[in-house]
Amino acid sequence: MRNSIGNILTLTLFGESHGNKIGAVLDGFPAGIQIDEDFLKECLTKRRPSLKGETARVEEDHYEILSGVFHGYSTGAPIAITIENSNTRSKDYDKMKDLARPSHADYVAQMRYKGYQDYRGGGHFSGRITAPIVALGSLAISALKKKGILIGTHILKLKDIEDVPYSNDKIDKEIECVNSKLFPVISDVEEQMKEVMREAADLGDSVGGILQVGVSHLPVGVGEPWFSSLEGELSKAMFSIGGVKGIEFGLGFGFASLPGSKANDAYEEKAKTRTNNNGGINGGLSNGMPILFNLAVRPTPSISLPQNSVNMKTMENTKLVIEGRHDPAIIRRMSIVITCMTALTLMDLLLVKEGEGYFQD
Amino acid sequence: MRNSIGNILTLTLFGESHGNKIGAVLDGFPAGIQIDEDFLKECLTKRRPSLKGETARVEEDHYEILSGVFHGYSTGAPIAITIENSNTRSKDYDKMKDLARPSHADYVAQMRYKGYQDYRGGGHFSGRITAPIVALGSLAISALKKKGILIGTHILKLKDIEDVPYSNDKIDKEIECVNSKLFPVISDVEEQMKEVMREAADLGDSVGGILQVGVSHLPVGVGEPWFSSLEGELSKAMFSIGGVKGIEFGLGFGFASLPGSKANDAYEEKAKTRTNNNGGINGGLSNGMPILFNLAVRPTPSISLPQNSVNMKTMENTKLVIEGRHDPAIIRRMSIVITCMTALTLMDLLLVKEGEGYFQD
Amino acid sequence: MRNSIGNILTLTLFGESHGNKIGAVLDGFPAGIQIDEDFLKECLTKRRPSLKGETARVEEDHYEILSGVFHGYSTGAPIAITIENSNTRSKDYDKMKDLARPSHADYVAQMRYKGYQDYRGGGHFSGRITAPIVALGSLAISALKKKGILIGTHILKLKDIEDVPYSNDKIDKEIECVNSKLFPVISDVEEQMKEVMREAADLGDSVGGILQVGVSHLPVGVGEPWFSSLEGELSKAMFSIGGVKGIEFGLGFGFASLPGSKANDAYEEKAKTRTNNNGGINGGLSNGMPILFNLAVRPTPSISLPQNSVNMKTMENTKLVIEGRHDPAIIRRMSIVITCMTALTLMDLLLVKEGEGYFQD
Amino acid sequence: MRNSIGNILTLTLFGESHGNKIGAVLDGFPAGIQIDEDFLKECLTKRRPSLKGETARVEEDHYEILSGVFHGYSTGAPIAITIENSNTRSKDYDKMKDLARPSHADYVAQMRYKGYQDYRGGGHFSGRITAPIVALGSLAISALKKKGILIGTHILKLKDIEDVPYSNDKIDKEIECVNSKLFPVISDVEEQMKEVMREAADLGDSVGGILQVGVSHLPVGVGEPWFSSLEGELSKAMFSIGGVKGIEFGLGFGFASLPGSKANDAYEEKAKTRTNNNGGINGGLSNGMPILFNLAVRPTPSISLPQNSVNMKTMENTKLVIEGRHDPAIIRRMSIVITCMTALTLMDLLLVKEGEGYFQD
Repeated sequence: MRNSIGNILTLTLFGESHGNKIGAVLDGFPAGIQIDEDFLKECLTKRRPSLKGETARVEEDHYEILSGVFHGYSTGAPIAITIENSNTRSKDYDKMKDLARPSHADYVAQMRYKGYQDYRGGGHFSGRITAPIVALGSLAISALKKKGILIGTHILKLKDIEDVPYSNDKIDKEIECVNSKLFPVISDVEEQMKEVMREAADLGDSVGGILQVGVSHLPVGVGEPWFSSLEGELSKAMFSIGGVKGIEFGLGFGFASLPGSKANDAYEEKAKTRTNNNGGINGGLSNGMPILFNLAVRPTPSISLPQNSVNMKTMENTKLVIEGRHDPAIIRRMSIVITCMTALTLMDLLLVKEGEGYFQD
Repeated sequence: MRNSIGNILTLTLFGESHGNKIGAVLDGFPAGIQIDEDFLKECLTKRRPSLKGETARVEEDHYEILSGVFHGYSTGAPIAITIENSNTRSKDYDKMKDLARPSHADYVAQMRYKGYQDYRGGGHFSGRITAPIVALGSLAISALKKKGILIGTHILKLKDIEDVPYSNDKIDKEIECVNSKLFPVISDVEEQMKEVMREAADLGDSVGGILQVGVSHLPVGVGEPWFSSLEGELSKAMFSIGGVKGIEFGLGFGFASLPGSKANDAYEEKAKTRTNNNGGINGGLSNGMPILFNLAVRPTPSISLPQNSVNMKTMENTKLVIEGRHDPAIIRRMSIVITCMTALTLMDLLLVKEGEGYFQD
Repeated sequence: MRNSIGNILTLTLFGESHGNKIGAVLDGFPAGIQIDEDFLKECLTKRRPSLKGETARVEEDHYEILSGVFHGYSTGAPIAITIENSNTRSKDYDKMKDLARPSHADYVAQMRYKGYQDYRGGGHFSGRITAPIVALGSLAISALKKKGILIGTHILKLKDIEDVPYSNDKIDKEIECVNSKLFPVISDVEEQMKEVMREAADLGDSVGGILQVGVSHLPVGVGEPWFSSLEGELSKAMFSIGGVKGIEFGLGFGFASLPGSKANDAYEEKAKTRTNNNGGINGGLSNGMPILFNLAVRPTPSISLPQNSVNMKTMENTKLVIEGRHDPAIIRRMSIVITCMTALTLMDLLLVKEGEGYFQD
Repeated sequence: MRNSIGNILTLTLFGESHGNKIGAVLDGFPAGIQIDEDFLKECLTKRRPSLKGETARVEEDHYEILSGVFHGYSTGAPIAITIENSNTRSKDYDKMKDLARPSHADYVAQMRYKGYQDYRGGGHFSGRITAPIVALGSLAISALKKKGILIGTHILKLKDIEDVPYSNDKIDKEIECVNSKLFPVISDVEEQMKEVMREAADLGDSVGGILQVGVSHLPVGVGEPWFSSLEGELSKAMFSIGGVKGIEFGLGFGFASLPGSKANDAYEEKAKTRTNNNGGINGGLSNGMPILFNLAVRPTPSISLPQNSVNMKTMENTKLVIEGRHDPAIIRRMSIVITCMTALTLMDLLLVKEGEGYFQD
């Protein structure tokens, strides 16, 4: 199980940056759920480069749903989608195919796949492959929304510019706000963040940041103790996405310097807690408070500035300049991918949990 | 797949805090590997409370290997182990069984398992269940060591006391140093950290911290792109362990404020990089540099100070005092558990990778 | 996943014929199901040798439920059981440990596990290990019965003596009849079959036969198209049990000589069909008619008569006489094991199916 | 895991009979294996209707490999393929969409997928979906062949016409012979079998039969004890294919009437046995003798003769005539599908087995 994720609801991914088509298969999606293609397209739009300064590779994302949808509803059969790759300039890559780009997968791919990998544009490792995740993940967002479960991802931090974190009491509105924007932030920091991106682009450099994900109205008891904890399943899904290098739930690394008496979430109003330091999860299961987690996002490794590389044929070190325009920050475009992976993970765990009821009444 | 983890090498966990025995089954462990029971016992000892101020529940950890070992070697059949629970005082728990302890799993368990869960001492959620993980994980540590792969976990931070992080050039010695100690730190901070723990204990409070894991000599190419990334599989394993609320690889959240030109790991000496900001992983696969990651560890939620609780029967809020002595910090005892989960995960991914060779000659 | 089976409800098996204990872990069993230990013991009794002429190794099957049960109900946590091995005479095996018993696993085990396997009494391959399957499988039988689903396995054929097959209209009574007996047959053939077993025993030989499994009141739609078809999942479970060498659903091999016009099950009364040639399954899913399948059971390979063997050390051929008393037919004792594996498989598939409802209302 | 099969090498299937495209994804296929598209096309040709009397729906099978292949070799990334559906006449199906065809999946699909399923031409249940299995399975056949492992499937029986079974000593030649033919038989029965098919077609009826699969040169020790037995994994794969209703290994149901002394395979020449009653498998693992198993194949359920049906809307019984031309026997076309599923299963189990070596030297 390498390019598949999920137990009951499984997503299988395929494709390379410069192949004709990329795609994915979503299996285990129950029959009878209305498919909202407008929303699917809206999600694809959010993933596409659109800002001045983002990568010049703009794809139309012509997609085709091959199966599993009939008369506008899911059929219960696997839903397969392919998306065309149109804007591929493979020649750019041929001339530097032996040079390992720093912090890219070139070198590890060469070692694991023994030189047989498709090296063009990162091949199967390319962020391009997140497009089908978004297309099919959008269906999970819709399905959860119908059950009242909301998910939103915003840019909590970009270099030194910070957005406000989700609040416990206004999170529904904040998620709605975030999901309504192409540049997902809660407070009024969009222009400042865009300015940071432009500056990085002008320098031929890139910037990283922090994404915050919020989920509201998830029922209590989703997840499992131990090896399928909600934190574990979500983190596995998150680290599937290139560029994510850290995750923390609730206070996360902030727990390290707090005493237990301040870290614990005391019960205030019935089972509601005043604080939500645990990010809505206890013992691996959702506790009824909003699910909150942060993701550390690396600066885009592709930069225009010259870097030290290694020639994988000769094993000699050499200077490398990666030509073309690059995304100074993938974090904006990544936010919808993260929301989709979150939705797929939660829907899978809900399917496991809900099956139990049959034997319990 | 809830209480099992791993694709080829799978660990299945069972037991409750106050049952007669807890245990685990390790399946897919290849035949012919020497079983080092002295090392197994050493690992169990590290997990046991031993410091003044740690929990008063000291277990002898009488274990029995039920299967899969014959004449001192693994047979290829599943290795099952049980460990006795001796020091259980269930009556302590009966009187407060309806009161949800803050930041514990009591409330989520009540909701998911509808009141049928074994509530005594946290039941199946108890940290006690990590003992069989350690026992069987020790076998994976040994197997990896025979292939030259070393793993060590140390306390990087306890409240405000900090140890030095692993260095790229002396990591082998540092891992050896860390593994030789009951209190795993690299520099001379043991007494300061113990003092912090004692202070917390005296206050009836607890403290959290950060663990750092280092792995050296892992071959290049372990892990998979996308859904079985090395980061993803490791994080899923780590969040299995109660109290872990964050993980970051290499620079992790530090990436957020760096430009790409400083964040990228430039190739210096052949495929060796000068920095190791990516923590030894690119594109989800190991890149030959040491694997480095940090774990945020929550303060132990069991404290002696009075807290706000909810009565799960009446849903009325009430004050709660958890009696008995509590671990002021589980981080020391957790370090060996983390090393074991790391070893199991890496061994599993190596088994997948190595099978490919058969068809490749 | 070698010693585990099931997607949501997983059974993990461990142990060897001559270890101190064997056991299993059942994970994913929903909370709140009453545990009927009397029934569990009754099932274990059915698996034990009890007839004159069956193997002399009679075990008391002292078992211990280690986890997952509290106050007589399942807790939702994994249910682990161990069963003691008492009647082990390992010395019998030491002197012939290099001689591969024909049609046993000795030779394949030697090759796969490179001589490290526990060879005593077949080690991990021994039929003894079916005892924990029966113990935990009995819980699935009970859970299904509460939903009205009945399962029964009877000896359809023993050498040349034949029982009557299940009928479509009286199957509930026939299943009840079969389950009430230690020697599970529908018609009056018990004595004749026992006589066949005695004759084989007297000759130092053994006999095979056919088991028929019937399931009534399984809801429509259990199973999946393609790779998790009801036939596929059941057959995988059945072939887990040593000695099963064939399976056929409904008419099975009888289909080969029928025209489609006679083979098809015509709808007679609403969705009820007159014939049940497909054994209650269409397109991989249950169709509301009784599930019916037959299993070919090999004669016990352990016989007293001298046989040609190979010495696995020297690779020289030699005569072998297996000492001690042997089961002349394992088919009677196997029937409860088959019922248990059937119950576990159906419960697993029901859990998958029922989870879908949550998103469908 | 519904439309995926395999642990390390996984095949995921999608598509419907009347969608624009059907397809599959093969994941875990090692890098560096040469892709033989001529052989792939040859296999697709074998699956296509070609005989007089076979279904009138002839598809060109225009396929597109979307990923995982680069410069003629596998890259290690998932291999996705789509195949066009061109010859679809959906209107034929609209008028009878409420009538359940006997022994088809119409009724179970209606119940499980609540009327949302794509009913046209059987939708996702259609035998049409075996085309991508064949395309990608052909790659596994090639990979195994390079390791010397041969697989062949022939029609052992069609109604009352019988081919000769595989012999133990000439099986390589027999497999080669079978694989060289569009009508796969060993002896001179092709014309007789074709005559049987023509007769059935003339009557508007259909016929069933038995396929025999042979595998030679599989290494000893492939498969696992208990839940991933070679028999179990193969049977699960076989029952994925619609129309298979029985499987027997070696003597199979013939074991029922033999004494153990005749059923056991005595060792004759070192570890070679004279008989191969166990079909090359002991204890769930391959034993070095040829793997042999038979499959019961149901007559095609689509026939021209009038049949009793049920209207799934009104639940009233009614007569049904299925128009158009139908396959009088799918067994010929099924043989290559079976060979492909066998190859995929064996390759998966070999990948598991071979990974163990890394830790064993």
